[in-house]
Amino acid sequence: MTKATNVATRRDGDSGSDDPVTTPGGEADAIVQAAARAAAPWAALNRTGRTQVLRTIADHLDSAADELVAIGARETHLGEARLRGELRRTTFQLRLFAELVTDGSYLDVRIDHADPDWPMGAPRPDLRRLMLPLGPVLVFAASNFPFAFSVAGGDTASALAAGCPVVVKVHPGHPELSAATAERVKAALVAAGSPEGVFDIITGLDAGVAALRAPEIKAASFTGSIAGGRALFDIASQRPEPIPFYGELGSVNPVFVTRAAATNRAEEIVAGFIASFTLGAGQFCTKPGVLLVPRDSDLVERLTQATYPAPAPLLNPRIQSGYTETLRQLTSHPSVSYAGNADPFADPPGPTVLTVRAADLVEQQDDLFRECFGPTVLVASYDSEDELLTVAEMIDGQLTATIVGEEGDRVLAPLMQALALKAGRLLWNAWPTGVSVTYAQHHGGPYPATTSPTITSVGTAAIARFLRPVAYQNFPQWLLPAALRDDTTLPRLVDGRRL
Amino acid sequence: MTKATNVATRRDGDSGSDDPVTTPGGEADAIVQAAARAAAPWAALNRTGRTQVLRTIADHLDSAADELVAIGARETHLGEARLRGELRRTTFQLRLFAELVTDGSYLDVRIDHADPDWPMGAPRPDLRRLMLPLGPVLVFAASNFPFAFSVAGGDTASALAAGCPVVVKVHPGHPELSAATAERVKAALVAAGSPEGVFDIITGLDAGVAALRAPEIKAASFTGSIAGGRALFDIASQRPEPIPFYGELGSVNPVFVTRAAATNRAEEIVAGFIASFTLGAGQFCTKPGVLLVPRDSDLVERLTQATYPAPAPLLNPRIQSGYTETLRQLTSHPSVSYAGNADPFADPPGPTVLTVRAADLVEQQDDLFRECFGPTVLVASYDSEDELLTVAEMIDGQLTATIVGEEGDRVLAPLMQALALKAGRLLWNAWPTGVSVTYAQHHGGPYPATTSPTITSVGTAAIARFLRPVAYQNFPQWLLPAALRDDTTLPRLVDGRRL
Repeated sequence: MTKATNVATRRDGDSGSDDPVTTPGGEADAIVQAAARAAAPWAALNRTGRTQVLRTIADHLDSAADELVAIGARETHLGEARLRGELRRTTFQLRLFAELVTDGSYLDVRIDHADPDWPMGAPRPDLRRLMLPLGPVLVFAASNFPFAFSVAGGDTASALAAGCPVVVKVHPGHPELSAATAERVKAALVAAGSPEGVFDIITGLDAGVAALRAPEIKAASFTGSIAGGRALFDIASQRPEPIPFYGELGSVNPVFVTRAAATNRAEEIVAGFIASFTLGAGQFCTKPGVLLVPRDSDLVERLTQATYPAPAPLLNPRIQSGYTETLRQLTSHPSVSYAGNADPFADPPGPTVLTVRAADLVEQQDDLFRECFGPTVLVASYDSEDELLTVAEMIDGQLTATIVGEEGDRVLAPLMQALALKAGRLLWNAWPTGVSVTYAQHHGGPYPATTSPTITSVGTAAIARFLRPVAYQNFPQWLLPAALRDDTTLPRLVDGRRL
Repeated sequence: MTKATNVATRRDGDSGSDDPVTTPGGEADAIVQAAARAAAPWAALNRTGRTQVLRTIADHLDSAADELVAIGARETHLGEARLRGELRRTTFQLRLFAELVTDGSYLDVRIDHADPDWPMGAPRPDLRRLMLPLGPVLVFAASNFPFAFSVAGGDTASALAAGCPVVVKVHPGHPELSAATAERVKAALVAAGSPEGVFDIITGLDAGVAALRAPEIKAASFTGSIAGGRALFDIASQRPEPIPFYGELGSVNPVFVTRAAATNRAEEIVAGFIASFTLGAGQFCTKPGVLLVPRDSDLVERLTQATYPAPAPLLNPRIQSGYTETLRQLTSHPSVSYAGNADPFADPPGPTVLTVRAADLVEQQDDLFRECFGPTVLVASYDSEDELLTVAEMIDGQLTATIVGEEGDRVLAPLMQALALKAGRLLWNAWPTGVSVTYAQHHGGPYPATTSPTITSVGTAAIARFLRPVAYQNFPQWLLPAALRDDTTLPRLVDGRRL
């Protein structure tokens, strides 16, 4: 099942990038050291205090919305409406983590009272466990969500909520916005009376790699390309003290359309697919990149004749050149056809639909089943619904997999079973873009969707990435952390029972 | 804080071992393939069925206790009473995981109903999340717990409970016991009607490494030495598809005795310390290896004059030679003194107490603050309680750290804060050996205690190592997994509220 890793040029990530400005080594080191000094006071701050800090950051960003959105629009080519919505999502996310800190269930408090008759064969001591912050976290920001996966995005919000100081290696695609966002976050931290060093930014790949190697950094997160993410994962894993590296890398997000759905809802499917894959000019990690459709349906014809959004400039020249390169490889492949009229290589690029036989996709998956970061998709025609299962069984890990089907489709049960092994999120008659920030969200998946199949980078469960359990044995009440005392009101497991 | 890794010869682990018998490559591959084929049916088995299987395994092992204990006693030099107790712990553990599977909270069910007014700025879709098994798990068995951390030990129990097939690379220290235990487990699986391939064993380092590289293996666990564990961690991390590697490696388990405690409770401290460090002839991962005591106390003198258990043979010749080597390095160190009369290098070895100044321990931590797997400890004398903090701040990650103190000791608060950063379990006026299997237990810690600071290898939370979340978006009730339907009775989080 494992095959040669596709080195997709999905986002410009950080591999080999020459940032125009870089934080000098000494200064970057001072920032990491300051984060290390802030770890104890930030971890020790009570939950009310930390909640207030997160809300203050959200407030400061909201009140700077006009300025920040204007800078973002200039630097990223993303429209004002999109950026305003993304900033709203970002401050909502900070407030949702504040709510989570208030609730306290993320501490996973467990209390086992001493039990002389514990059936293990030896008396059970008094044991109490809670989650503590891991320590300073290094966040590698992404290009394609200049707010939500950047300086004050989900990684920063969840790490701060966990009680970890954060050093963000900013993305070179939006340097001014990164600096302006960081200014607002720092002002909020000062206003809320936070310890110095809890948050700062560094610039440049060299500074990022040096920070990743710094013994003071205890975890790192990343959103970007497979090549860049894997390189950083390897550095994190090969340190004298390896640290958790939470990389969200590449995903094709295949969509499996059954014959019945194609017959009954062709118009709706075409409209939904086009809206999803052209959103943000196709620069979403959850863009549906491969659509599997029955050959005897009219879906390909409908897609050929459909009306598409106007061409839109990509985030930056590196994304554009990476996109063009992948597109060139796909269009020059003998099994792939292009049926449109417009020049797919135009800059800005228009939405492009390539076609292929599903059998060819299976046979040449390394070349064809790959992420193309931008507004191009591959539509694969199958003769038999069995081919849907073949594709589901052959693919690598994905962030999402979507089934567009109808009640009664015989392929549903085996297809769901196969896809649950491969994807972090399954969708039914819906589209994968627009990742909601919620309690039940999971934005992750087996490699190479992420470097760690057990974690999510979106939703409240993302906080678990930055926590570690510590057990306290035989401590008297007066010496225990407050969360572990008998009078705690936190959600907890007491002698195996949920309270 | 990070320093050169101590390559302690703690247990014989698996690095460089030449197992007398080894599973041939073809056969080992067939076992891995069978585990892969078993993954889907084992994962699909309902919770009642899996509970029955775990209980049946426990019953079969219990009913074979006489035979298994006799083989174990012959192969490991561990006494019958100890082995009988360990087997009881092992079958208790299987039944505790059965109870956990019945309870179902490990599935971490989360249900978010669709919400058109979700304050993120976009409607929230219906999202539901649960935990699914990771897939086939490779377990590297340990030598020092031939039942509890071996063929049917905690790793196997928690992986099977999670719904993962298990391949155990047996430890060469007890080959017959491993084979006999595996026979019983397999018989139980057949009796309970489990799918073929859910459990099997392989023998030999080569077979273990080949299995670790097999793409079908989705996670691995290990209990053993730092050197061996790190080598396997590196292999797991460098695979084309990296997999989680849960290694429990080395730990010194320092004990910090305050001046007041030394003054008030010298006799009790000496008795407790001796009992703890000589338990199992010092071959426990939680053996208290370093005891910090005030220089002006009589603890060293009492330890010198105390009565000790008789010399006991170590597990096997490799453990004995590793122990002798570490002991020779420690005793030849110019800062270390040995005050006893008996020959510390005798075989079998008697309990040995070495002494050092705490200041020397700090200055030469790489040489002196290291695990010595066997019945030797280092007692470090301090002049000022501040030295306790210095030691706590300098050390690497530990499984445990113990404070022996009195109410009113001024060092307690900073010492607890420092040690919570370094150890997975803190103890107060207790001893770290005898790890209880409970809901709140945490047997883990920062590197090199383990390769993953966020997980435990003992206690019910150990099941989380072998699970990954999957979210389902927009699915109708009839198509959802039963655990995620509106009528589920499992413990769950619904729209952010615990039910």
